Amino acid sequence: MTDEVILLNFWPSMFGVRTMIALKEKGVKYEYREENLFNGKSPLLLEMNPIYKKIPVLIHNGKPVCESIIQVQYIDQVWSDKNQLLSSDPYQRAQAFFWADFIDKKLYVCGRKTWATKGEELEEAKKEFIEILKTLQSELGDKPYFGGDKFGFLDIALVGYYSWLPAYQKYGNFSIEPECSKLMAWGKRCMERESVAKSLPDSEKVVGFVLQLKKLYGIE
Amino acid sequence: MTDEVILLNFWPSMFGVRTMIALKEKGVKYEYREENLFNGKSPLLLEMNPIYKKIPVLIHNGKPVCESIIQVQYIDQVWSDKNQLLSSDPYQRAQAFFWADFIDKKLYVCGRKTWATKGEELEEAKKEFIEILKTLQSELGDKPYFGGDKFGFLDIALVGYYSWLPAYQKYGNFSIEPECSKLMAWGKRCMERESVAKSLPDSEKVVGFVLQLKKLYGIE
Repeated sequence: MTDEVILLNFWPSMFGVRTMIALKEKGVKYEYREENLFNGKSPLLLEMNPIYKKIPVLIHNGKPVCESIIQVQYIDQVWSDKNQLLSSDPYQRAQAFFWADFIDKKLYVCGRKTWATKGEELEEAKKEFIEILKTLQSELGDKPYFGGDKFGFLDIALVGYYSWLPAYQKYGNFSIEPECSKLMAWGKRCMERESVAKSLPDSEKVVGFVLQLKKLYGIE
Repeated sequence: MTDEVILLNFWPSMFGVRTMIALKEKGVKYEYREENLFNGKSPLLLEMNPIYKKIPVLIHNGKPVCESIIQVQYIDQVWSDKNQLLSSDPYQRAQAFFWADFIDKKLYVCGRKTWATKGEELEEAKKEFIEILKTLQSELGDKPYFGGDKFGFLDIALVGYYSWLPAYQKYGNFSIEPECSKLMAWGKRCMERESVAKSLPDSEKVVGFVLQLKKLYGIE
């Protein structure tokens, strides 16, 4: 049987990018279906993710897998013959899961505040955002990738945000580079991989998308 | 080398219970160290979980693993010779991770509102709490355990809340049984296992603990 793989996604998502990169790393052919969330949600999305009704959804031979971090693990296990993304060592795995969870708990909410809030809340958010990145940078250390010499799971978990950094900085009016130059160098390094470069949205397009969001929500 | 396994926990935690059950299912001997969070945090806890400074922390041969769901996976992989908790099937695993994540996203926050809020917020919280349980009950279906005939990962992820249900119902003044009788029967079934019965705190003690919390936070 040939695998039928469908990805429901919305192009600016830093989560959907994870799943795209993982599929590309494994050389899995898939059908990409754009869900333009401004135009409502497709019946297929509602059927495949009835709990959250959110992208990305990976549909493998008719069966849905929801939540991007779970999708990456699933892809790594199903197509295990090529480019292992997670270490097989239990402790390394636990560390990767811990930091991926840290990213999911912290980065999205704080990043959003850099363009959706003002005044003191914005100042707090910018400080916190830099602190989060510095914590991640310290976990990276002097390694080329989070897992060591090889691009892997935790790189995939974080790199989707790389396209969003120019938007965060522009609307929040702050600069990440001075305190996070190592992390920015890691981002550039990831972008040299075809799987990443072909998955991440253009950061200028993200800047425009955030402007659309600001207008939609009446944020000046 | 003999494994040195230490668990830092606080007895009412529905999260620490997961790790205790997993260790017991595997027959792993461990040293339990109580962190009484009313009396501050121990230097060991701060050293072993510098990011969140939260229990439970599993320390295996000096190395910390944080976050209970990650601990259960770690334990399942390290002591893989006995009582497999997660399926080896990628799709079954993805489903188990999805529902464990659902529990972590929804149940704690909503459960807390049943004793910490009043008026309309409380009424909303009770409705939502029942809806969450009904969703989980529907996932359980007619199976004895979430994974099928065998007690496993997702049972462990949820069962810690079973001890808390009497407190939620008492202070929220509502009843779970009428709409969730199958889920309650599942809870009783889990309690017949030694690993669960020996890990879960007494629910009357939890009722008293929540009263302590209400006083501490000035909630009448």
